[in-house]
Amino acid sequence: MSEGETGAARRRARDLGLRPGVFPPGALNAITDVAGVLVGQVTRIEGDFTRTGVTAIRPHGGNLFRERVPAGLATINGFGKLAGATQLQELGELESPLVLVNTLSVGRAVEAVVDWTLAQPGNEAVLSVNAVVGETNDGRLNDIRARGLEAADVRAALEQAAPGPVAEGSVGAGTGTMAFGWKGGIGTASRVLPAALGGFTLGALVQSNYGGALLMDGHRVGEALGRFYLREHADRGDADGSVMVAIATDAPLSDRNLGRLALRAMAGLARTGAAFSDGSGDYAIAFSTHPGVRRPQPRYEDWPNERMSPLFVAAIEAVEEAVLNSLTMATTVESRDPLSRRKRKGEAIDLDAVRAVLARG
Amino acid sequence: MSEGETGAARRRARDLGLRPGVFPPGALNAITDVAGVLVGQVTRIEGDFTRTGVTAIRPHGGNLFRERVPAGLATINGFGKLAGATQLQELGELESPLVLVNTLSVGRAVEAVVDWTLAQPGNEAVLSVNAVVGETNDGRLNDIRARGLEAADVRAALEQAAPGPVAEGSVGAGTGTMAFGWKGGIGTASRVLPAALGGFTLGALVQSNYGGALLMDGHRVGEALGRFYLREHADRGDADGSVMVAIATDAPLSDRNLGRLALRAMAGLARTGAAFSDGSGDYAIAFSTHPGVRRPQPRYEDWPNERMSPLFVAAIEAVEEAVLNSLTMATTVESRDPLSRRKRKGEAIDLDAVRAVLARG
Amino acid sequence: MSEGETGAARRRARDLGLRPGVFPPGALNAITDVAGVLVGQVTRIEGDFTRTGVTAIRPHGGNLFRERVPAGLATINGFGKLAGATQLQELGELESPLVLVNTLSVGRAVEAVVDWTLAQPGNEAVLSVNAVVGETNDGRLNDIRARGLEAADVRAALEQAAPGPVAEGSVGAGTGTMAFGWKGGIGTASRVLPAALGGFTLGALVQSNYGGALLMDGHRVGEALGRFYLREHADRGDADGSVMVAIATDAPLSDRNLGRLALRAMAGLARTGAAFSDGSGDYAIAFSTHPGVRRPQPRYEDWPNERMSPLFVAAIEAVEEAVLNSLTMATTVESRDPLSRRKRKGEAIDLDAVRAVLARG
Amino acid sequence: MSEGETGAARRRARDLGLRPGVFPPGALNAITDVAGVLVGQVTRIEGDFTRTGVTAIRPHGGNLFRERVPAGLATINGFGKLAGATQLQELGELESPLVLVNTLSVGRAVEAVVDWTLAQPGNEAVLSVNAVVGETNDGRLNDIRARGLEAADVRAALEQAAPGPVAEGSVGAGTGTMAFGWKGGIGTASRVLPAALGGFTLGALVQSNYGGALLMDGHRVGEALGRFYLREHADRGDADGSVMVAIATDAPLSDRNLGRLALRAMAGLARTGAAFSDGSGDYAIAFSTHPGVRRPQPRYEDWPNERMSPLFVAAIEAVEEAVLNSLTMATTVESRDPLSRRKRKGEAIDLDAVRAVLARG
Repeated sequence: MSEGETGAARRRARDLGLRPGVFPPGALNAITDVAGVLVGQVTRIEGDFTRTGVTAIRPHGGNLFRERVPAGLATINGFGKLAGATQLQELGELESPLVLVNTLSVGRAVEAVVDWTLAQPGNEAVLSVNAVVGETNDGRLNDIRARGLEAADVRAALEQAAPGPVAEGSVGAGTGTMAFGWKGGIGTASRVLPAALGGFTLGALVQSNYGGALLMDGHRVGEALGRFYLREHADRGDADGSVMVAIATDAPLSDRNLGRLALRAMAGLARTGAAFSDGSGDYAIAFSTHPGVRRPQPRYEDWPNERMSPLFVAAIEAVEEAVLNSLTMATTVESRDPLSRRKRKGEAIDLDAVRAVLARG
Repeated sequence: MSEGETGAARRRARDLGLRPGVFPPGALNAITDVAGVLVGQVTRIEGDFTRTGVTAIRPHGGNLFRERVPAGLATINGFGKLAGATQLQELGELESPLVLVNTLSVGRAVEAVVDWTLAQPGNEAVLSVNAVVGETNDGRLNDIRARGLEAADVRAALEQAAPGPVAEGSVGAGTGTMAFGWKGGIGTASRVLPAALGGFTLGALVQSNYGGALLMDGHRVGEALGRFYLREHADRGDADGSVMVAIATDAPLSDRNLGRLALRAMAGLARTGAAFSDGSGDYAIAFSTHPGVRRPQPRYEDWPNERMSPLFVAAIEAVEEAVLNSLTMATTVESRDPLSRRKRKGEAIDLDAVRAVLARG
Repeated sequence: MSEGETGAARRRARDLGLRPGVFPPGALNAITDVAGVLVGQVTRIEGDFTRTGVTAIRPHGGNLFRERVPAGLATINGFGKLAGATQLQELGELESPLVLVNTLSVGRAVEAVVDWTLAQPGNEAVLSVNAVVGETNDGRLNDIRARGLEAADVRAALEQAAPGPVAEGSVGAGTGTMAFGWKGGIGTASRVLPAALGGFTLGALVQSNYGGALLMDGHRVGEALGRFYLREHADRGDADGSVMVAIATDAPLSDRNLGRLALRAMAGLARTGAAFSDGSGDYAIAFSTHPGVRRPQPRYEDWPNERMSPLFVAAIEAVEEAVLNSLTMATTVESRDPLSRRKRKGEAIDLDAVRAVLARG
Repeated sequence: MSEGETGAARRRARDLGLRPGVFPPGALNAITDVAGVLVGQVTRIEGDFTRTGVTAIRPHGGNLFRERVPAGLATINGFGKLAGATQLQELGELESPLVLVNTLSVGRAVEAVVDWTLAQPGNEAVLSVNAVVGETNDGRLNDIRARGLEAADVRAALEQAAPGPVAEGSVGAGTGTMAFGWKGGIGTASRVLPAALGGFTLGALVQSNYGGALLMDGHRVGEALGRFYLREHADRGDADGSVMVAIATDAPLSDRNLGRLALRAMAGLARTGAAFSDGSGDYAIAFSTHPGVRRPQPRYEDWPNERMSPLFVAAIEAVEEAVLNSLTMATTVESRDPLSRRKRKGEAIDLDAVRAVLARG
């Protein structure tokens, strides 16, 4: 059994010597470095076919419908089924947690988020909930048509959501996803700005399931290891598909500036070698946990346009590193194709091979 | 029992002498005047509480996933839960029927549309479906939190979808909706362009659930009958909420021009006195049934920008008249509030009173 | 000489008994009812050919580059040459006055606004100015290719901008414009909300140059007087083109809510019978003069989403009435076609004929 | 005198061994590899202060107003003065050449493009022209407030536009621009797809004036040479500003897919280390020269969504390499600050130093 299969020796990108960008990470190098953010994940690996799960991000532990957070959305390539997009943009806020699942489970997850919100104390009279549910397609490893994910899984992820370290790789909504030809999944990272630039913390979490030619902090790993878009898939003319990005920060940002921040995810993805292919649903949602922007309030704090640039850089860096973590922490996942019943495998990237490429410079 | 309660004497707007605009309607004065378009509706009226339903629009009777139609979306006020918005815009097409339900049933309806599409012959290997599901909130008459609508209802609406006359008023997804303080619901209308302007047919279908001060072809009916926004609801600062509009045409339009056409729905709604209130989810989706634009194809027919204006006018007129029909055809609906158990009523607008206002000029 | 030619007997819409909507107007029924807003206009009528001008709106009398106001833009139909659109949207603010001219003078006006801003005290080191210049095409009465408007005209309009009554009709940027087949031009109106709804003032100013079938508060005046789109212009398949709308308010609104407010202009235009034709450049820009939202500041006041609806209604009403005023106040303008040298005329709408239509009900 | 000052030994990125991406370049590795595309540039270096110019791109040599090309726009960060944006998006086409100048010369350039278009044979009756003029701010080397650029310069660039090699570096609209702390300017590159992927050519041209931490095909050159955003500029909290990108292709693309292609420019810029700072006006415009999509036509060819991904990759690669060329081909430019009259210098990046960083791996 290889380390990719056991996970015993999986490492985060930073442990391999990769440190993209100029800002330092937070204590956990995770989205949960942003105080108050909770992450919960449920992984469903069953029999030969089910390889899926759910990842839930709660901006704070309270009643989000009653204490909404400002949020912005960037639709990078909209070939995806993201629920809740238009209301998020119209009102510039999140009133429900951000939940990630697989492509065909969005409907069920929306219903689960609605149910969970309706059942929260204080929401007895609520008649309208905007559930924000993102997805990528894990159909290369999961029997996605069988809809293995249950409403109870979504609820469990929401209930178990907690601060602290976040499991990465082949877990939660990343259980069955692939990236750059290897096993992808959940990854996270964070950045802390120096006090002179605001001292804020910004964290990212990705569900990686897309392709291109993998770059690791500029190193052409995909080409070096002979696995990259337009080599692997030139016959079918498409790269792997989709990535969902969540960005949290404690800076007091307006929804407009959160939308701008979300768009910077595209730059972080680009630096990993993303092809931004036609069939990819690439979205980023950014929100602020700062109490001075929580809604509703008669007056809002605001970090000015003129001082946004360091936060933009932090977002680019955190997203890039979160993707790298999703790959280096992912473990190999095997299953069977539900139609042909043939074995199939999402292979974890070989860290020794990566180290060798990095050592070559 | 009043005629509003029985429906016996309900009339379409045109039968009351209302004929907004300059173009004539098609044979049915319905979205189904556009050849090939199918509409199916399921109405759920049960016990004291359930007053809801589903309305499904199929652009053609074939496998839409295999023969996609170009489409455009206008988000007029995005306080709504429309599913499928971003992919519709990214690719400029519909790959699934347009389904309308209530606000809290979107998740279930998405799942039902996905299931129905996966099960269609030819779709055995499909792993990704963009379900487009719109909604308005029928919680003023329906026990919306109880989620009375079942996946089977959505399937039934899709299966029963047919050409020909379309039931209007308190049916399908309009069973429990209100508009301008009266009972609203489903309405439809169409327009036919003269041959010199292309000779095309354009039809609209609305699920009306919004408010303002009702205008009927310019007549201030809302004010005359003493029921209008900022009188009725000044205390809570909000008008009734939401309207979904579907526009079909047989003109060979690009997705860009369909998006422009969809935006003209806002003008049709405006002419009925819409307040476009904060809490309203107001969307329009336009699609073309012309075989020369069905996808995929190596070459597309295209009706040029320079000749779009008459179609814009037709869309404005058809939407306006569809809303009027949704009111004049709606029948009174009664139910009980699930919390207080008190009786509540969505009253059909009194057609004699309307006639009296119109007669005054 | 008719009253349309002399202007002697021109009347505002309200003086004809028209009072669209439910809210009362402000003291002047003009955009300048919003305290601090200044309007300046220069009219150029020279020889047989030049019939043009400029209208400038200054949100306040200070240095706008140093004290910016939040603003939102709605692009209703983007067939226009509006300068400054993308920065207005990215930053959500105005850093220069809003200037209206004719289509082919936008370049010159941009340069003039830049020069004027660079020359303001305090701006000696400024290297970047986002000039926001809108336009409609007065080429039906003005020799637009000859570029009669000078930079000095723009400067003069900016310098002369003042509070108080606003000249309407065939003046400023409306000197040569047409609407609904009659002489259009500049029009303005305002609304005041009751104290319970915030007590705010909202004003609109329009440069009307578009077409359709004229409705005056619901009365089908265009059809009654035999002049309407698809009758007049069915041969060339296009309606008259373009309208620019400015909306000012003293409510403390975010740029997002100002963008939503701007979109409501479409509803006001719709109620006048607008065709929203292909060739029309229809835009609205809304800004707030409230000191609590002036930029930059560390904290902003904010009027919440939930209380926006009455402002939306006020915007719809003010825009509708501003258009009516642009018609009823416009005087007949004559000129010669620069190619054929034939006489041409933009005829003022006959107010007695209007009164007769209104009297019929 | 260093080679950076004379230009004698300036090299294109590819000559330094840099070859980003997987596709080969065209014969010239320039936007003019796309058949029919013409580029013209005028450089204004005068006295101590004027360091500016104009770069014009003509999609074809004919009358563009009569034979329009489909086009798409991506507004990456809209802090810029791009003229013509809204009409380009509404109609999905270019009716005038794409002209690049400095920030404060946009007005004058718009007027020049309008004049030039009005004067073209066949346009005698034209009354409306949508001039598309982009800009970046060369105020760090040029006395931008003095407005050195004349309408005649714009005309000259349009008239001299030609196929063949394109001058790069400190020329045209890049004469006074800076990138990543060094002298930037005009750069271009191209890619050719294999026949199996369509065999199309795609070219990019950039006007680089932005910042971040320079990456050259993944090598951290900015940090290695000690010049990068958040080191250089941490005090003022902003990176260098703005980049305009033009993308041409002979693939028969719809305006929607050209808009998607344009957005991929963000990925190319990201791979050079762009910070996408607040004050940067970052835009990309993509157009197709394919005769089967030239407008107006009753039927259009179309390259399907499903086959777009290789074009997306080609765009990313070409934009990345075009930026590198803008740096490695730029020569040092010196001038005086117009206020302090002190000398200032935009230093060309030292190619030997670059080679040394690349050699380290």
